[in-house]
Amino acid sequence: MQERDRRQPGQGREQAAGANGSVAHQLIAAHLVEGTLEPGGDIGLRVDQTLTQDATGTLVMQELEAIGLDRVRTEVSVQYVDHNILQTDERNAEDHAFLRSAARRFGLWYSKPGNGVSHPVHMQRFGIPGKTLAGSDSHTCAAGSLGMFAVGTGGLEVALAMAGRPLRLTMPQIWGVRLTGRLPDWVSAKDVVLEMLRRHGVKGAVNRVLEYHGPGLASLSAMDRHVIANMGAELGATTSVFSADDTVRAFLRSEGREDAHREITPAADVRYDLTEEIDLSSLEPLIARPTSPGNVVPVREVAGEPCDQAVIGSSANPGLRDYAVAAAMAKGRQTPPGVSFDINPTSRETLTDLTRAGDMTALIQAGARVHQAGCLGCIGMGQAPAAGRNSLRTFPRNFPGRSGTEDDAVWLCSPETAAASALTGAVTDPRAWARQAGLSPPDVPTLRREPVNRTMLQEPLPAEEALRVELDRGPGISALPELGPLPDELEVPVLLRTGDDVSTDEISPAGARALPYRSNIPKLAGFTFTRIDPTYPERAAGHRDSHPADEARGGHAVVGGDNYGQGSSREHAALTARYLGLRLVIAKSYARIHWQNLANFGVLALEFEDPADHDRIEQGDVLHLSGLHAALAPGAEPRLVARNTTRGEEYRLRHRLPAGRRASVLAGGIIPALAAEEAGDGSTGAQPGADQAADPDA
Amino acid sequence: MQERDRRQPGQGREQAAGANGSVAHQLIAAHLVEGTLEPGGDIGLRVDQTLTQDATGTLVMQELEAIGLDRVRTEVSVQYVDHNILQTDERNAEDHAFLRSAARRFGLWYSKPGNGVSHPVHMQRFGIPGKTLAGSDSHTCAAGSLGMFAVGTGGLEVALAMAGRPLRLTMPQIWGVRLTGRLPDWVSAKDVVLEMLRRHGVKGAVNRVLEYHGPGLASLSAMDRHVIANMGAELGATTSVFSADDTVRAFLRSEGREDAHREITPAADVRYDLTEEIDLSSLEPLIARPTSPGNVVPVREVAGEPCDQAVIGSSANPGLRDYAVAAAMAKGRQTPPGVSFDINPTSRETLTDLTRAGDMTALIQAGARVHQAGCLGCIGMGQAPAAGRNSLRTFPRNFPGRSGTEDDAVWLCSPETAAASALTGAVTDPRAWARQAGLSPPDVPTLRREPVNRTMLQEPLPAEEALRVELDRGPGISALPELGPLPDELEVPVLLRTGDDVSTDEISPAGARALPYRSNIPKLAGFTFTRIDPTYPERAAGHRDSHPADEARGGHAVVGGDNYGQGSSREHAALTARYLGLRLVIAKSYARIHWQNLANFGVLALEFEDPADHDRIEQGDVLHLSGLHAALAPGAEPRLVARNTTRGEEYRLRHRLPAGRRASVLAGGIIPALAAEEAGDGSTGAQPGADQAADPDA
Repeated sequence: MQERDRRQPGQGREQAAGANGSVAHQLIAAHLVEGTLEPGGDIGLRVDQTLTQDATGTLVMQELEAIGLDRVRTEVSVQYVDHNILQTDERNAEDHAFLRSAARRFGLWYSKPGNGVSHPVHMQRFGIPGKTLAGSDSHTCAAGSLGMFAVGTGGLEVALAMAGRPLRLTMPQIWGVRLTGRLPDWVSAKDVVLEMLRRHGVKGAVNRVLEYHGPGLASLSAMDRHVIANMGAELGATTSVFSADDTVRAFLRSEGREDAHREITPAADVRYDLTEEIDLSSLEPLIARPTSPGNVVPVREVAGEPCDQAVIGSSANPGLRDYAVAAAMAKGRQTPPGVSFDINPTSRETLTDLTRAGDMTALIQAGARVHQAGCLGCIGMGQAPAAGRNSLRTFPRNFPGRSGTEDDAVWLCSPETAAASALTGAVTDPRAWARQAGLSPPDVPTLRREPVNRTMLQEPLPAEEALRVELDRGPGISALPELGPLPDELEVPVLLRTGDDVSTDEISPAGARALPYRSNIPKLAGFTFTRIDPTYPERAAGHRDSHPADEARGGHAVVGGDNYGQGSSREHAALTARYLGLRLVIAKSYARIHWQNLANFGVLALEFEDPADHDRIEQGDVLHLSGLHAALAPGAEPRLVARNTTRGEEYRLRHRLPAGRRASVLAGGIIPALAAEEAGDGSTGAQPGADQAADPDA
Repeated sequence: MQERDRRQPGQGREQAAGANGSVAHQLIAAHLVEGTLEPGGDIGLRVDQTLTQDATGTLVMQELEAIGLDRVRTEVSVQYVDHNILQTDERNAEDHAFLRSAARRFGLWYSKPGNGVSHPVHMQRFGIPGKTLAGSDSHTCAAGSLGMFAVGTGGLEVALAMAGRPLRLTMPQIWGVRLTGRLPDWVSAKDVVLEMLRRHGVKGAVNRVLEYHGPGLASLSAMDRHVIANMGAELGATTSVFSADDTVRAFLRSEGREDAHREITPAADVRYDLTEEIDLSSLEPLIARPTSPGNVVPVREVAGEPCDQAVIGSSANPGLRDYAVAAAMAKGRQTPPGVSFDINPTSRETLTDLTRAGDMTALIQAGARVHQAGCLGCIGMGQAPAAGRNSLRTFPRNFPGRSGTEDDAVWLCSPETAAASALTGAVTDPRAWARQAGLSPPDVPTLRREPVNRTMLQEPLPAEEALRVELDRGPGISALPELGPLPDELEVPVLLRTGDDVSTDEISPAGARALPYRSNIPKLAGFTFTRIDPTYPERAAGHRDSHPADEARGGHAVVGGDNYGQGSSREHAALTARYLGLRLVIAKSYARIHWQNLANFGVLALEFEDPADHDRIEQGDVLHLSGLHAALAPGAEPRLVARNTTRGEEYRLRHRLPAGRRASVLAGGIIPALAAEEAGDGSTGAQPGADQAADPDA
C-alpha cells in the first residue's frame, strides 16, 4: 500500500527543484505523491505522523475499525484526550476508555486525560523537522513551529492517512513573512499573529502557507513560534511553517530529542509567491475584540473597559514562558474580588515545571483558579463567562457563543495583557501596568526545566499483541454503521424539500444535547434535520435501506436548494443522514465540503439541470432513477433522469463526480471501498480519496 | 428583633443545669430560646453564624431580598461559591456575580470561586468553639469538629436565621461515642466514621447528636475530627460534636486565631442518652461499596476489584494530611494508563501548602489530574466515571447517579485506600500495598504550613455603603415572586389529581435540564409536575392568582393521595407550584417536610376527613371554600368544608397548622409575613417559623 502511495516521489522532487526554495516547498516536494507544485492544483502528500483528539477521534477510530485496518501505516500516530475532560456524565469517561483500547488495537500512542493539549505535547514529544503531520483538529498547524508541514483536516482524511493514503490538498501559495527587529518589552508572540490578523483578517491566508523567515526569527523561541503557527488557522491558512534552525535544535535538545533535529531553511535564492514584512520592534500589545479573531486593535485603545475574567492557556499560548510571565506579574499581588483569573496548564509537564519553580504558588496566592491540563474553556468546555461580561483569553478564537455563553464578550490577547487585566479588573496595556507596578520584564524560561517524564503517554502495543485487543465499547459508543453499495436503480420517496442555504448545522445540529453523541451515530442520527423538521428522523425510520441493499428498494431522498450543506465541515451531517437511509440528494447547487462528505459516505448527490424543477417536487413524491452504475462508470456522461412516479414528470439531472470518486460512491462510500481493499478484495476498483475539510474541531 | 429572640434564655439555662453535661447540651443550652432539653420536643436556637453555598444560596439571597432585610443579624454570615464552578454556560458566572453583590448588599462575607469548599474554609477562617452555625448544606455539621453546634438545613431556615430568627429543631438525643486507643498505620479518620456507618447504617443517628469523647480523641487532629463530623450527615445525625480542647486550640493557633479558642469539654459526670465505644486500635481500612454510604466492608474483602478512577478531595477528606499522605504514596510511582487519578484541592490555602511543599509535584508526576479547588465530583459536577466502572472516592456519598453517571459504581474510602488503588488499578488495602512498596507511614503535617492568606474572601461592606449596593442580577436570575395573602374564600379548579406517594422529584424535577434554573423561579416553574402531566404548567397559566389577591378569585388546587410530597426537601417544590397559582392542596396525608414547605410559602394544605373523598373529585372540578380566616385564627377548630360546585358535593377537611404557623399562612407565607414586620407593619401578628429540612443540597 505504501509502495503505491510513494510511486511517484521522483516526479515531486523534480518539480521541487524547479520551485521557489521556500521551507514549505521543500517539505511539500519531499512528500508529494500526486500533483505538481503549481498553486491551485490538487496535490497528494505522504503523511508521516497523525494526531487525533478525543472530540474527533472516536469517529476516526470507528472508521479505522470499519475499514478493517490492522495497524496504522504512519511513522507515528497519537491519540490525545484533551477536549472532553469535564466528565459531567459517563460519556466522556467511556470515550476515554474506548480511545485507549482503539489506540492499543491500531498501534497508536495514547495520551491520558491530564497529560495535556495535543499540539504542544505533540511538539514536545513527537515533532520532527521535515515531517508531515495530519491532525483531526484545526490547530494541528502549530507543529509548523518545528519546520513540519502540519495540516488540520477532517476525521476521515486522518483515518485515510493512518491507512497509508495520501492527504489531498489544494496546492497553496507560499507567503513569505519576513521578520526583522526584536519584540519590545511586554510584547510577545501572540501580538505578532494578532498583527497578521489586524492586517489581513480571518480570510487573509486562505489557500496560502504562511512562512515566517528573516533576521527577527532568532529572537523567537520554539514555543513563541508555536503561538504564531497555531493561529495561522485563524487567518484561514493551509498551514504555517518556520525554519528548523538552531532554536529548534535547542528546543529538541531540551526535550531530550536532539537527534530528531534536521536543519531546514529557505534556499538562498528563495522566491515567495507573496511577501510581507513585520518589524517586530514596531509592535505593541494588541487585542481582538469580540467576536472575531480579526477584530484586532491596540490594547491602549480599549484600556479601561471592565474585565470580569482572564484565562491563560490553550494551544495558542502553551509555553512555559506564557505562564511564568503571568506568575511574575501576579507575584505578591491580588486579583479583585469580582475577577475570575483562570489558569489552564498546557500539559502535565508544563504544570510540573511551574509547580516546582514556584510560579504556581504565586498564581494561586494571587487568587487564580488552577484547572486540570487540557483545552477546557478554549473549546467551550467550562469557564463560560456571564453574558456580556468581558473575558480576556489567550485563546485562538472568540467566535460568538464558542465560550458556552450565547451573548459572550470574549477578547483574545497575550498572557501579559491577560494578567495585567486580571490584576486590575480592567482591560490594561501591560506596558502601562508595568510602569505603575514598577516591574521590569521578568526573566522567564523558554525551555523546560524538569526532566522529561512521558509516563502519561502509553506506547503502542507490539503488532501481534495489538491484534488481540478488544475495543472497549461502553454502552454509549456505537460501531460505525455498515453502509451498503449503491444499487443500479433507486425508487425512493422525497422525505424533505428544503430551501436555499441549508447549513450542516441544520442537517446535524451541534449544541449540548447533540454533541455528547458524537461517538454514537445511531443516537446522533435522531437529531438529523430536526431544526428544519422534527419529524424527519421518525419518518426516515420507515425508509431505511436494507444492507446488503435490495436493488431499487429502501432508502429515501432529500431535495435541496442552492448552496446546500454550507457551513461547518462536520462529516456527521452526511453520515447520520446516510445512516437513516438517505441515498439521494438532488439540489440546485452544493457547498463544496458537504458535497465531498456526501460522496465520501456513499450518498448520490445530483444537481438539477433546470433549477426550476426544484419547486415541482413535493414532500412525499416518489422518484425513480435507473442506470446508476452506467452513469457512474469511468468516462461515462454524468447525466441522469429522475422520474417522479407520483406526478408523472421527469427531471434532467447531472452529477459532478470526477473519475477518482465514482467507484467509491458505487461501493457505498470510501470506507466500504477501503474495507474491500483491506480484505484483499480489490473488486470495486475504487481509488478512494477525500478532500480536505476545514474547521474539523467545530 | 434579637431582643425578642432571646427573651427566654434563662429558661434554657436552668434546664441546661439539670441536663446531662455533654458538650452538645452545653452548646444547646447556651443558645436555647424556645423549648426544653427533653429529647423529641421542639426547640429554637439562637444562631451565631450562617453559611450558604452557591447552589442553595441564590434562593436564600432572593429570600432576604423579598423579606426586605437591611443587613444580616448574625455575628458572621458567609456566602461561599464552591458547587457550581464548571461554568458550562453563562448561568454559573451570573450566579457568582449575583451572590457577590448580595453578600455586599446584606453584610455577608463572600468567598470567591477557587477559594475552596465551604466547610473546611469556614472551619479555618470563621469557626469558633461554642458558637452555633446554620448552613444551607447538609455537611454544615462538619464544624462540630471545633466544638460548634452546626446544623445543615433548608435555605429558608438559613434566611430566617440571618434575619435573627431562631433555628427550629427537634431536640435530639445525645449519643456519646467513646474513643479509646490510637489508629493503626494506614488507617485514618475516614475509617472511624465508616466504622460508625458499618455499625449503624444510614439512619442510625436520626434525631441524635453524635458526641465523640474519650481518651482516643487526643490522637485525632482537628481536620481528622472534621472528617468524622462531616459524615455524621450520612448517619442521619442532627449534627456531631467534639470537645474544644488543646487540639482545637493548636488548630486555631495555626490559623492565626488562637484568641477565638474557648475550652468546652463534657462535664465530669456527663450522662449520655446513648453510649457507644470504638477502640481505634482495632480498626482497619474500610470501604463503602456502591451505592450507599452504609454498605461498609473491610477493604481486604473486596481487594482486587478493578479501579478505574480514584478521587481525593471534598469536605469529607479536606485536610492537608489527606493529600500529603497520597502524595507520599505516589511519589516516584505511576498510575496505570487506564486509571484516572483526580485531585480536588479543598481550598486555595491547602493547594498553596501542597504546592510549596512539593506534594503537588509528586502527585502530578505520578499522573494525577489536579482540579480547581471546590466540590466538583462530590456533588456531580464533573469527574463522572464510565457506567459500571469502579470509582473510589474520599467523598461522603455514593447514592446511585450522584456522580453524574446513571449506573455508576462509586466506593467511599480513605485517602490511603484511594491512593493505593489508584497506583495499582485495583481496590487495594493500603497496608498490603505499603508492605509490598516497602513504605513506612509518612510523617504528614496536620496543620497549615503557609501563612494565612485571606484575600479570596471579601469582607462585608460597612452598613451604610451596603445599603447602596444594587444586586447584580444577570438575565437568568429572577427576584423571588411576590406572593399574596390567603383570601377568606377560595373558588378554584382542581388542575391535577395524583395518586399516593408523589415525590418532590415529581413535583419539581432535578436533572440537567431543570437544575440550572434554581436561581430562576419563573423558569423553573415551567417544569412543575411535568413528570406527572406535561400540560400542568401551561394549564396553570390560566389559573394564576392575582396579587394583591382578589378574594375568592384566581389560583387553583391539586388533590393528592397518601404521603404527598415525599422525598427530597427541596423548597422549590412548594415555591414553583405556588408561583404558578397553587393555593390549595387537599391530600390523604403529607410527607412532613413538603407539608412544612407548603405552609412556608403560603399554600393551604388540607387533609380529607374521609380519604375516600379523594376518588370523588375529578380534574377540572371547581372547589369552593369559605371562612378560611376564621378557621386559621388562633385557637380555632381546624375544620373546613369544601364544596365541589361541579358535582354538588361537600367534603369535610382539616388542617394541622399549629398556632405558630397559622398567621404566616394567612399572610401568604413566611416571607410576606416577615417582610411586613421588617417594613414595621406588625399587623399580621405572624410569628414566622420554619422547621428543619433534611438534605438541603439535593
